[in-house]
Amino acid sequence: MPLGPEHLLFELLLIFVAAKAAGEAFEWLRLPGVLGEIVAGAALGSYGLGWIHVSDTLQSIAELGVIFVLFSAGLETRPGELIRVGDKAMQVAVAGVAFPFLLGFGYMKFRGDPTSEAVFVGAAMVATSVGITARVLGDLRVLASQAAKIILGAAVFDDILGMLLLAIVAGFAAGGRLEWLHLSVLTAEAVGFALFMIFVAPRIVHRIHPRVAQLSTQNSSLIVALSICLFLSWLAAKIGMAAIIGAFFAGMVFADYAEEWNLLPRVGGITEFLAPFFFFAIGSRLDLRLFNRQVLVVATVVSLLAIVSKVIGCGLPMLSQGWKDTLRVGIGMLPRGEVALIVALVGLQSGIVLPSTYAIVVFMTAVTTLIAPPVLRYLFRKEAPAKIAAQL
Amino acid sequence: MPLGPEHLLFELLLIFVAAKAAGEAFEWLRLPGVLGEIVAGAALGSYGLGWIHVSDTLQSIAELGVIFVLFSAGLETRPGELIRVGDKAMQVAVAGVAFPFLLGFGYMKFRGDPTSEAVFVGAAMVATSVGITARVLGDLRVLASQAAKIILGAAVFDDILGMLLLAIVAGFAAGGRLEWLHLSVLTAEAVGFALFMIFVAPRIVHRIHPRVAQLSTQNSSLIVALSICLFLSWLAAKIGMAAIIGAFFAGMVFADYAEEWNLLPRVGGITEFLAPFFFFAIGSRLDLRLFNRQVLVVATVVSLLAIVSKVIGCGLPMLSQGWKDTLRVGIGMLPRGEVALIVALVGLQSGIVLPSTYAIVVFMTAVTTLIAPPVLRYLFRKEAPAKIAAQL
Repeated sequence: MPLGPEHLLFELLLIFVAAKAAGEAFEWLRLPGVLGEIVAGAALGSYGLGWIHVSDTLQSIAELGVIFVLFSAGLETRPGELIRVGDKAMQVAVAGVAFPFLLGFGYMKFRGDPTSEAVFVGAAMVATSVGITARVLGDLRVLASQAAKIILGAAVFDDILGMLLLAIVAGFAAGGRLEWLHLSVLTAEAVGFALFMIFVAPRIVHRIHPRVAQLSTQNSSLIVALSICLFLSWLAAKIGMAAIIGAFFAGMVFADYAEEWNLLPRVGGITEFLAPFFFFAIGSRLDLRLFNRQVLVVATVVSLLAIVSKVIGCGLPMLSQGWKDTLRVGIGMLPRGEVALIVALVGLQSGIVLPSTYAIVVFMTAVTTLIAPPVLRYLFRKEAPAKIAAQL
Repeated sequence: MPLGPEHLLFELLLIFVAAKAAGEAFEWLRLPGVLGEIVAGAALGSYGLGWIHVSDTLQSIAELGVIFVLFSAGLETRPGELIRVGDKAMQVAVAGVAFPFLLGFGYMKFRGDPTSEAVFVGAAMVATSVGITARVLGDLRVLASQAAKIILGAAVFDDILGMLLLAIVAGFAAGGRLEWLHLSVLTAEAVGFALFMIFVAPRIVHRIHPRVAQLSTQNSSLIVALSICLFLSWLAAKIGMAAIIGAFFAGMVFADYAEEWNLLPRVGGITEFLAPFFFFAIGSRLDLRLFNRQVLVVATVVSLLAIVSKVIGCGLPMLSQGWKDTLRVGIGMLPRGEVALIVALVGLQSGIVLPSTYAIVVFMTAVTTLIAPPVLRYLFRKEAPAKIAAQL
């Protein structure tokens, strides 16, 4: 008898309370709360105590959560600011993709692995997953800093490059031939989308902005913003980019009106409610038992390379801005996520990548995911507003 | 290849935009927006054009949506205010349960149907589904009115009575014997829960309230409130009540601090995002083709009885307050929902209720669901704040 939603409510309750309680404990220990939420997921999820298995429904709610994390970050990023750091952000993204690929590829070849497997490991080391960084920067209230703008801008380019690399290795896995036409279409779509969002969309919003207030529906500004957020998230995913990049753009085009429309507290409320499910879900996918396995030595080397190569690659174009912003951007771009796992999975399923190599990639994502938040918090400790700085 | 959440995002986008666009059109026609959202669901759902089949995940998001509608309504209802209307609310609930049951039962017996089937139809006519009314009152910003308090208070008692009646008819369906011990436990749990929430819980919140601000986590007040909302929704569902009643209590215990903690815009944002999925889902379950079937005459009579009996039952104790509040409360308690359908389904599955009688109950829920919002809006047109009243 369909008597009620107790079961889902119980899981939501358990995840929310566990994530936030662990977050509070971590904050008390001067560590980022988001790390606590991830650790709660690792502890209670399938690879930990097994209290909670993240179902499809929970996974969907988690994906909505990270969409709102980036939507919120976008609301604090005005298009003009993003254009101003555009050059720098593109350099950061390109070098931050090239270095990890070359180092990952080179090390695997050096170990004597076949070229095809080395390509996959290199590709898996490329794509930054910006959700964690956006959350840490938002918690520290430093989204307005120069380094934060460059990280978010670079994440857009990084996502495009990562998508192309994924298309290349997927073609590689399927038969080995590169479809240049397909790649060109992908590139044109993604670049066109990004350029449209940055240069044209804000003007459209400027035009329609007075009409939104005339709608009869209550909270019409919030509803229009939410509709655009869902639309651009879907569109980005549809053309092969990350949904969160679309959500970031959606926030950005409304950034100039976020205050007037009182969007920040209202979207912030949604983010606050949904985001913990995402970070918990990330944690629940971290198999901490991998840390005891035979692959440990290689996995540690690959993880170190993943860290060093991203920090150097993303840092190099930043050197002129001083070492502090160099490190901030390098560490901000550190976390790897879904794309790395998808690349490795494609390789595994096509038989090119060995299960032990897949485990190495999983290990690497875990290490970069766990290391970035505390280091980032440390690097930004002086930028944070007084109340937060006192807790750091 | 798990390349992205496009499909779910597309469904969410379609539902959100369709619901809100229909809502805007209805507001423009001086009809309640929520009715537009329900009609959008009926038009695009499985019984309409079939563009969207409400999946388990969408259903879960919808259930979260109505939880937040009642949580928001609770945040605007101080415990003291609820206690003040307590007597009146209980009278409204009791008479509002007794009249529909007796009229429904009586009419079916009069038609010559067996007693067992008449019991089920009577029981299905009892329970009010307060989600729609709470949303209409919230949209009109009249939650502070006397009639709104009485409706919300009566909904609590109505839910307890409806739960007991459901337990009785379920026992009836299973074997016919009433388990008095089981019923006593259910009653004690529900009454104890309600009394605790109204009289004790607000004092506990008053005690812990200064400590919440000392937590290191950002937005700690919102997070504590959301945790309690999830907890009480789960607990209410666990003891057999409606989850939304738990959510309403959760809002109520924080009502005294809603302003200080800036909860209204932040919880309001969540409600604004999630609620349309609930009202769309309600609509998608309305099978409008029923309106052409043979059962139409009986269904129309039963629907009329459902309206008249609820308005008279809930109105009688209100007569001393003037005819306007009498009608407001009567119409506010009109919509039937899940409980009616569950009662009818239990009867259908046990063979006591014929499929044609089940269709009558579905028809009756549809009629009461669709009629209440516009009439309620009309009855409250003079209480609404200036800007909204101008649109009415």
